[in-house]
Amino acid sequence: MMTNILVGQSGGPTVAINASLAGVIRGAMKQEQVGEIYGMLNGIEGLLQRRIINLRKSIQCAEDSARLAATPAMALGSCRFKLPEAPHPAYGEILQIFKEYGIGMFFYIGGNDSMDTVKQLSAYFAQQGEDIRCVGVPKTVDNDLPCTDHTPGFGSAAKYVATSIAEVARDSAVYHKFNVIVVEIMGRNAGWLAAASALARDSGTAAPQLIYLPERAFDPEAMLAKVREYAKTDELLVIAVSEGIRFANGEYLSAAGATKDAFGHVTLAGTGKYLEEMIRDKIGCKVRSLELSVLQRAAAHCASATDIAEALEIGEAAVRFAAEGKTDVMMIFRRVPGDVYLVDVECVPIGACANLERTVPADWITADGSDVSEEMMHYLRPLVVGRAPYFEEKGMPAFFALDKRVVEL
Amino acid sequence: MMTNILVGQSGGPTVAINASLAGVIRGAMKQEQVGEIYGMLNGIEGLLQRRIINLRKSIQCAEDSARLAATPAMALGSCRFKLPEAPHPAYGEILQIFKEYGIGMFFYIGGNDSMDTVKQLSAYFAQQGEDIRCVGVPKTVDNDLPCTDHTPGFGSAAKYVATSIAEVARDSAVYHKFNVIVVEIMGRNAGWLAAASALARDSGTAAPQLIYLPERAFDPEAMLAKVREYAKTDELLVIAVSEGIRFANGEYLSAAGATKDAFGHVTLAGTGKYLEEMIRDKIGCKVRSLELSVLQRAAAHCASATDIAEALEIGEAAVRFAAEGKTDVMMIFRRVPGDVYLVDVECVPIGACANLERTVPADWITADGSDVSEEMMHYLRPLVVGRAPYFEEKGMPAFFALDKRVVEL
Repeated sequence: MMTNILVGQSGGPTVAINASLAGVIRGAMKQEQVGEIYGMLNGIEGLLQRRIINLRKSIQCAEDSARLAATPAMALGSCRFKLPEAPHPAYGEILQIFKEYGIGMFFYIGGNDSMDTVKQLSAYFAQQGEDIRCVGVPKTVDNDLPCTDHTPGFGSAAKYVATSIAEVARDSAVYHKFNVIVVEIMGRNAGWLAAASALARDSGTAAPQLIYLPERAFDPEAMLAKVREYAKTDELLVIAVSEGIRFANGEYLSAAGATKDAFGHVTLAGTGKYLEEMIRDKIGCKVRSLELSVLQRAAAHCASATDIAEALEIGEAAVRFAAEGKTDVMMIFRRVPGDVYLVDVECVPIGACANLERTVPADWITADGSDVSEEMMHYLRPLVVGRAPYFEEKGMPAFFALDKRVVEL
Repeated sequence: MMTNILVGQSGGPTVAINASLAGVIRGAMKQEQVGEIYGMLNGIEGLLQRRIINLRKSIQCAEDSARLAATPAMALGSCRFKLPEAPHPAYGEILQIFKEYGIGMFFYIGGNDSMDTVKQLSAYFAQQGEDIRCVGVPKTVDNDLPCTDHTPGFGSAAKYVATSIAEVARDSAVYHKFNVIVVEIMGRNAGWLAAASALARDSGTAAPQLIYLPERAFDPEAMLAKVREYAKTDELLVIAVSEGIRFANGEYLSAAGATKDAFGHVTLAGTGKYLEEMIRDKIGCKVRSLELSVLQRAAAHCASATDIAEALEIGEAAVRFAAEGKTDVMMIFRRVPGDVYLVDVECVPIGACANLERTVPADWITADGSDVSEEMMHYLRPLVVGRAPYFEEKGMPAFFALDKRVVEL
């Protein structure tokens, strides 16, 4: 039986989320039972405004698909809309729109909140006796979704973070004098991305020598003692920290560092900035901080080939699984045990993963909480392998621009 | 007549400065009259401590040379040492060391201060009747050296800045709501690098819509008026600013934004951070700032193929020119007039360029001071073309590590 499909993107941007979109489109094109391939602009929020486009018309050739996969952020736009708890009129409206557009399969590429949306819609459609298959496709630079070995987008962010630190370590080692760099990395509750900074050491630098994750209470005195030790023997000390590290009393460092800005408004310090100030105040050595900010989730020019290929594959598999009857599931990677890195693409009931957060296991952090273990390194290494395909024109990235003309029914 | 050569690096790091070093080594290997190829560690400062290494032994094969050229910062280390005015005992010491090591040609890769060192040594050696040829090889991300069309290192920094802005523009355009990003770019007196942000538009974004350079006094009211206009029609506004912009009274924005940090110390605001606070205070829209910091001069993974090839070429030519008898000169690029981008490598008397700073021409900035002209775009475009060779192992940069064992005479 012929059916149309609908795909959307939601949550924060990553470098791999358009690769998963390209994968869904490719997967749909391979299914004879799929008619139109619709995309919703700005997620569920845009869907409710019937801002729906035709993706079969947007992707005309292999070049379009490859360029889309190499374009960061969300080609369809995003939203931060969380579906209200059912019962709520929004559910009926959404079902009505699905019926108008003849949607039999729905794919939502996103993080925690987006998986909750898939779960709610899935439950509602089932309750209404509708055969609309709902599949969540994970993405997040935070790598904090449960059930899956890792999430698309994480490997590329990890590669950018570690590569940037390897470069900054070279940059800061040119003078013959001790200096400290504090690098602040994304991660409010889960320290995966800051942990990935350790990969910089595979490029032949000792940096980062200290890594602090939100999974452990931060002890400023212990850190300062370590800085004093490094100052005796080293020329360069790089400290990588998650933005979300907290003191033992639960207070965020960014809150402790709050000051008034030049206009009199209270402003949170960056966690890295606060540590920079602390080290300068207590030790007085040369120190600076660096916030990788949104660059770490947007740097398509430094994407991991492994990550982008996997993001494509998981998107394509999502359509195959839905066509085979799967619904109410999230797609996952399962790492095949053994020396060679291999992943199987599978799916799990979405109830097992929505609204749950996966943090770094306690035993993947060293006893004193200032580094990650060799198991963590073993876990991380394959995820950053290779440079992803990248398109340039006149020396600038040649990103794919989606035709956003809304479908007139 | 056989002679040994000596090469050093000085000033701030760039991505291209090791390519020029690789060029000097390659050029020296081609000259039959060159015996040993010595490198000084940490510039003139290390020379005075006789910290000298043998580069012929360090570079064993084409792979070593190519990897060195793809490694950011200074393989030989740097210094911020400015030679005191002659007469001074340091000159006699340096000549003594040159004689011990049999140096007949000296190459110093650096920016303004380094060119002054070449000039001073050149004059001293001539005055002493010594035939030691002194050649300056320019580098700086700031592009502020006179006489040359551009400086090695600038093209790669320009490519990184513009590529990052193109990516951040994608990242910040995913929500359906007006927001402002202020990007702070290196450049204290010369706005070349901030100007290069305009190249991001070649990737299909309108960003950056506003560009402010230190060559023009900054008018906050004019900027705020423009932000209010964009807020009416656009979803995303990117403002690129040089760190060194000043108000009409000459005060740096970073000084105006100074506040007390969490430890009570007065701290300069980043220029971008101060503008972020100003826009939030006066307009109240969503706004954030981003400081590209040292990443812009260290990002070898995003280097311009044109820049790295030219940096190699100018280093190689420096040795050829010295062998032909040139001394007391700085190497330069002269752009060949015409539609196709071509540069000739030449040299000029170093007195014409040392201690001078080249800023952006007034007519390459638009009348209202908020953008750059089409001449500037035409000037910039060829400098960022192509992706430079890049080596990876296990997904991480495979930088070249120089054997720093000091030569025992």
